[in-house]
Amino acid sequence: MQDSIEQYMQTVGQQARQASRVLASASTQTKNNALSAIYTALQDSEAAILAANQIDMTNGRNNHLDSALLDRLELTPSRFKGMLHGLKDVMSLVDPIGEITDLAYRPSGIQLGKMRVPLGVVGMIYESRPNVTLEAASLALKSGNAIILRGGSEALQSNKAIAEAIQHGLKASGLPETSVQVINTADRAAVGHLITMSEYVDVIVPRGGKGLIERISNEARIPVIKHLDGNCHVFVEAQADLQKALPIALNAKTHRYGVCNAMETLLVDEKIAEDFLPSIAELYAEKQVELRGCRETQRILGSNVKPASEEDWYTEYLGPILAVKVVSGIDEAIDHINKYGSHHTDAIITENFSLARQFLARVDSSSVMINASTRFADGFEYGLGAEIGISTDKIHARGPVGLEGLTSQKWVVFGDGQIRQ
Amino acid sequence: MQDSIEQYMQTVGQQARQASRVLASASTQTKNNALSAIYTALQDSEAAILAANQIDMTNGRNNHLDSALLDRLELTPSRFKGMLHGLKDVMSLVDPIGEITDLAYRPSGIQLGKMRVPLGVVGMIYESRPNVTLEAASLALKSGNAIILRGGSEALQSNKAIAEAIQHGLKASGLPETSVQVINTADRAAVGHLITMSEYVDVIVPRGGKGLIERISNEARIPVIKHLDGNCHVFVEAQADLQKALPIALNAKTHRYGVCNAMETLLVDEKIAEDFLPSIAELYAEKQVELRGCRETQRILGSNVKPASEEDWYTEYLGPILAVKVVSGIDEAIDHINKYGSHHTDAIITENFSLARQFLARVDSSSVMINASTRFADGFEYGLGAEIGISTDKIHARGPVGLEGLTSQKWVVFGDGQIRQ
Repeated sequence: MQDSIEQYMQTVGQQARQASRVLASASTQTKNNALSAIYTALQDSEAAILAANQIDMTNGRNNHLDSALLDRLELTPSRFKGMLHGLKDVMSLVDPIGEITDLAYRPSGIQLGKMRVPLGVVGMIYESRPNVTLEAASLALKSGNAIILRGGSEALQSNKAIAEAIQHGLKASGLPETSVQVINTADRAAVGHLITMSEYVDVIVPRGGKGLIERISNEARIPVIKHLDGNCHVFVEAQADLQKALPIALNAKTHRYGVCNAMETLLVDEKIAEDFLPSIAELYAEKQVELRGCRETQRILGSNVKPASEEDWYTEYLGPILAVKVVSGIDEAIDHINKYGSHHTDAIITENFSLARQFLARVDSSSVMINASTRFADGFEYGLGAEIGISTDKIHARGPVGLEGLTSQKWVVFGDGQIRQ
Repeated sequence: MQDSIEQYMQTVGQQARQASRVLASASTQTKNNALSAIYTALQDSEAAILAANQIDMTNGRNNHLDSALLDRLELTPSRFKGMLHGLKDVMSLVDPIGEITDLAYRPSGIQLGKMRVPLGVVGMIYESRPNVTLEAASLALKSGNAIILRGGSEALQSNKAIAEAIQHGLKASGLPETSVQVINTADRAAVGHLITMSEYVDVIVPRGGKGLIERISNEARIPVIKHLDGNCHVFVEAQADLQKALPIALNAKTHRYGVCNAMETLLVDEKIAEDFLPSIAELYAEKQVELRGCRETQRILGSNVKPASEEDWYTEYLGPILAVKVVSGIDEAIDHINKYGSHHTDAIITENFSLARQFLARVDSSSVMINASTRFADGFEYGLGAEIGISTDKIHARGPVGLEGLTSQKWVVFGDGQIRQ
């Protein structure tokens, strides 16, 4: 069985590589035609896809999946409409492929530039949400990449039904059906092969729990676009305008709890802590946010604030809990963020120009903000159209990753007979 | 001993990480002052460095190192001058750090841009040439990165002497001496630690033989900027101007043999093979280049051409040997290049506009050229100033890698109180 899974994955990989060669030089029109044909095929298959999803839902209930997982798994008619809407959005994005930039003459007479090209084959590993299947496939196609999709076993029927419609659309438009392939086995060994077949796969994008992502990035032999944590900070500096600080601190924590760009620790300069903390604590109390504070925070806000442990500074709560620390100034704030943070998104609230510049230069995170809510750090708000993932690494793609993260640039040289002297 | 090496490497790593925090926000002036102080320190230490190099040379001769290796190892006064000249060049490069691009308003009112920042800590692993010590250190400093250098044991005394002068210069300019560290042990276990300390090292740049680089990229747990091979092609298309094709084919093979951007296989369209091959063969004969041809090449050029085996198409000769194949047209040429090539540098010689465009789009190499010699693919000719390495991978940096390859971009957001709706 092990053998046949390896063989199966090798075949999937070879097919993806072959398809990627066709996709790399497919015209924008061909790719958009394919996305349009996929749109039609999905519309035609709505009933079949929702029925397949109901099988997954039934199996999930029988397997006692927790309710949050079941909720993410479910495809309703309105979610299905949302999926199709997202596909339209990707169709309307500008094709990044083939763009040549910085074309200029060199002293030798050659003309040198950079041309944007696809990465080749994307391996996507994700859990539960079947809409990721379409989202990832459409982003990959638009950027000229083939994609291998490995969803969770709990969503296998839904993903297969969506993939069938996608392949129907690909066929109708003349692109290889193997441009988008869904791994059709729940065997975990498939993931092990996917993340090590460096001859067939150029980049791995995992989405899911921290455990899954950690395991994948430890075992992968292929570059991984990932973030493990979103432990984001807002630092309310002594010269903050509290009319900005209050709504931002409230929004960053309470706009949505379960998202990676929500604030998890609030840092407050000691010079304004007595003013600011009671006001913001009142707003949090209305939203029933639990506060865990340093000693100084406890002194100011009183005994209804629990003490924060060392562990709290590292924690991404993903819920209505917030760690609060009073700091002596910008140096302590930046050191705290660079030490305990996850290099995701961090903001300073200040009216002081020089301190804002310092924060910008010294905070080592994928998004650094001045006087704005950390909640803005996503592909939609950044205008990327859609997002295949978020990266907290510095190599290749950083922060929200859209179409461009699935591309690379090669050098192009135009000459009329130049040789090296 | 194993334990103490691990401990030593951990200390080196921690020190590099700390230094990188200081370097990341060091001003251009501070970094240039440091490079200038290093220049002076090196001038002052010339005698000591050349004496240390003589110890390495004596040891090398006693250890029966081959003459090519000894040649690369040797530092003469004129090579020393060349090193200093290279340092001046790096000083004159524009500082890439802090550049903010694409700053524009989003519909939410936030202003979004990208800011160029250092990667953090570079791990450099290389053989014999002691000048790499200075070259890599100066590129790292200019781009705000700390660097850990691991040269070959055969160059240990030279590298230590150069590093001492560098650290002297760093000290004089007020930057941490640990910004540049040379591993002071010949123990191979040090490399194993260096390429797996992902908490302290952000990127590995290996330079040396294919075996070394292969081993490093297999074992590294940190992104590696590398190329294994330079198996470059020139395709003389049927509509080539032979007055361009002849000098380019000659230059690409014979300008220098031992370099990664030299041509290793010549592809010739069957429609012009009878014309072109005898003329180019005559030029190669003058340079005593050995030809290994396909059947058709042998038929045209006669029996002084050896038969090429399947293995020849994969081979980077790095010497006066050339594989020659007659192909049926552009499709066969592109398929051959994408299959047997190393994705380094490949050129087409043609006057046909549409075929040139096709070649550009479909050849999957880090540099793709039209009517120019593959020998142009290097950092100097591309105007990067200096080159830390060449990458044939698609992730992060591709082709010749200069300062920019040692940097990353983070997102920056400026607001005046915006919250997410």
